[in-house]
Amino acid sequence: MTWERDNIAAMAGYVSGEQPDNIDTIKLNTNENPYPPSPAVGRLLRDFDATVLRRYPPARADRFRGLAATLHGVKRENIIATRGGDELLRLVMTTFVDPGVPVGMTYPTYSLYPVLARIQDCPVVEIPLLDDWRLPPGMASDLNAAGVKVTFLVNPHAPSGTLRPLDQVRGLADELNGILLLDEAYVDFVDPDQRHDAVRLLDQCPNMIILRSMSKGYSLAGLRFGYGIGPSGLIEPMLNKTRDSYNVDVLAQEIATAALDDQRHASQGWMAVREERQRLTAAFAAMHIPVAQSQANFLLATLGARAPSLHRGLRESGILVRYFDAPGLTDKLRITVGTPEENDRLLSHLGRLIPAD
Amino acid sequence: MTWERDNIAAMAGYVSGEQPDNIDTIKLNTNENPYPPSPAVGRLLRDFDATVLRRYPPARADRFRGLAATLHGVKRENIIATRGGDELLRLVMTTFVDPGVPVGMTYPTYSLYPVLARIQDCPVVEIPLLDDWRLPPGMASDLNAAGVKVTFLVNPHAPSGTLRPLDQVRGLADELNGILLLDEAYVDFVDPDQRHDAVRLLDQCPNMIILRSMSKGYSLAGLRFGYGIGPSGLIEPMLNKTRDSYNVDVLAQEIATAALDDQRHASQGWMAVREERQRLTAAFAAMHIPVAQSQANFLLATLGARAPSLHRGLRESGILVRYFDAPGLTDKLRITVGTPEENDRLLSHLGRLIPAD
Repeated sequence: MTWERDNIAAMAGYVSGEQPDNIDTIKLNTNENPYPPSPAVGRLLRDFDATVLRRYPPARADRFRGLAATLHGVKRENIIATRGGDELLRLVMTTFVDPGVPVGMTYPTYSLYPVLARIQDCPVVEIPLLDDWRLPPGMASDLNAAGVKVTFLVNPHAPSGTLRPLDQVRGLADELNGILLLDEAYVDFVDPDQRHDAVRLLDQCPNMIILRSMSKGYSLAGLRFGYGIGPSGLIEPMLNKTRDSYNVDVLAQEIATAALDDQRHASQGWMAVREERQRLTAAFAAMHIPVAQSQANFLLATLGARAPSLHRGLRESGILVRYFDAPGLTDKLRITVGTPEENDRLLSHLGRLIPAD
Repeated sequence: MTWERDNIAAMAGYVSGEQPDNIDTIKLNTNENPYPPSPAVGRLLRDFDATVLRRYPPARADRFRGLAATLHGVKRENIIATRGGDELLRLVMTTFVDPGVPVGMTYPTYSLYPVLARIQDCPVVEIPLLDDWRLPPGMASDLNAAGVKVTFLVNPHAPSGTLRPLDQVRGLADELNGILLLDEAYVDFVDPDQRHDAVRLLDQCPNMIILRSMSKGYSLAGLRFGYGIGPSGLIEPMLNKTRDSYNVDVLAQEIATAALDDQRHASQGWMAVREERQRLTAAFAAMHIPVAQSQANFLLATLGARAPSLHRGLRESGILVRYFDAPGLTDKLRITVGTPEENDRLLSHLGRLIPAD
């Protein structure tokens, strides 16, 4: 006999990218930041008084929330700290979507969204993107017609890295009858000259929650820390009702606060990643490999039928990239932007594996 | 308008004990361990390489799970690591209980259980304990008749501290049609001469999951780390489907592993708490204050109508204890066992606040 609920028994879990133990592996498969976190993090760990751990942590991470509020020009009540962005995504489901009520997303998108929908026993309404990854016209009315309560939109988009301009995001939020969860896990890598700041939209979008992650932009994937920014009416029930009490531990709160406070260190890393993104994009173009215009810390390269074998070939050379065995993606590889040295190794191995025309 | 689901809008969140910023407060209100965690934790923090944080953590905390499995004489597949015991409680709801299906618990009990039930939109079936905190006869058949899918039983019991013997636990598991979640958050403080080891029951109880917490027994409340022990068929769907991917961060995994590995340090703390529990129990008896026979790191003292004013009086003296404004508990205070010095201060202030007969 099985004890699981029917929807759980019928579903498959989220499959994360491979995490090799081998420290020498060049890991360009899970969009981690190639640079270390702020030196303030190392100092904090060295000086941390372990006896503090015997007491429960600050329940709502108020110091972190205050700092994030200042950084974004909002109030503390507009911020919730979460165990990675993933916890925020789950809380949005738990708090706002009854079982059986559909949730919306594009196809393709972050593959955790449909998993969270299935856990909540909610059907998924997928809106296929256009061939150039743009949102199709009529997306909001299709989602409204389906009775969607929450729509997940990742921007910059994963796995293509393309950025939807703010007027499109705002238009979608305006038109949707439900909540728009704008997943900005990769937004730190957007070129500053795009002047892309979705937080500015919050005043005009009472149905929008923005997700931020410390995993990529602040080199803290191992720590599991993210936060939500939104109208206090949407933040409050997650903060005071559905969140696990003490959801973020005291050490993570302090580390995340120190890292967020060191904007100078973080932005140097973003700049370096942008430069390498540009160099890699140019190098792929020179190799006649089409890549989507990325504003994230990864590139989606179209390699045709050889994509799976290139994935294996790179793996044998100690370079992990991401291959998705999913409709529309089987001819592509998603490649995280690494350090200049890692990217050189990638390009050299790719050049070796792809016979010259 | 409200965006929340009806069950969320209608519910109140969990209310945790007060967490004062003032480090001088004597904090006997949330059952924290009065002693620091293993010195190995401090060493680990000092030597931790912060660059590790840029990569995602081991997804399933396999090293921790292996150590816990060895400690308990089970297999790694019988262990799941969670963000505190609270995450395990939530996962049990999400994985096994459909909305609308009742969950069982005693009254009184850990006040988070009904909150988690409401989040999942499940009715609660409460079985009132007997006056001496024992389980009433016919409990399992009442729960079965109500169609309960999961029953939460905390042992040693909170807030009384009383211990149900293993044959009662086994009898309950045997009789229940659903799953028994045995919450052993306080089990480390049970006297060794009780030879109380519920893990031995697992072979005979295919419907039982045991919860363990690092918060109290290992002085790591601030870290948020716990684990579940159970049949692999019950652990597996939580591990591979409903758990947030990367639910425990790399630093917490390493700290919890180091603390669990230092059984000598932890058990010295348990012994000290047991001695002080005995001393406090005797001192209360001498003051004609009835206390339940506790096998946990707290005492439930019956103080009559003066309980709320004593709670306030102690608070004004810088001593926090827990008062529950709940049926059957309004004449009682739950008092965590502190260090000998903290307990002396408590007794001296109590003696001052309670006029001699």
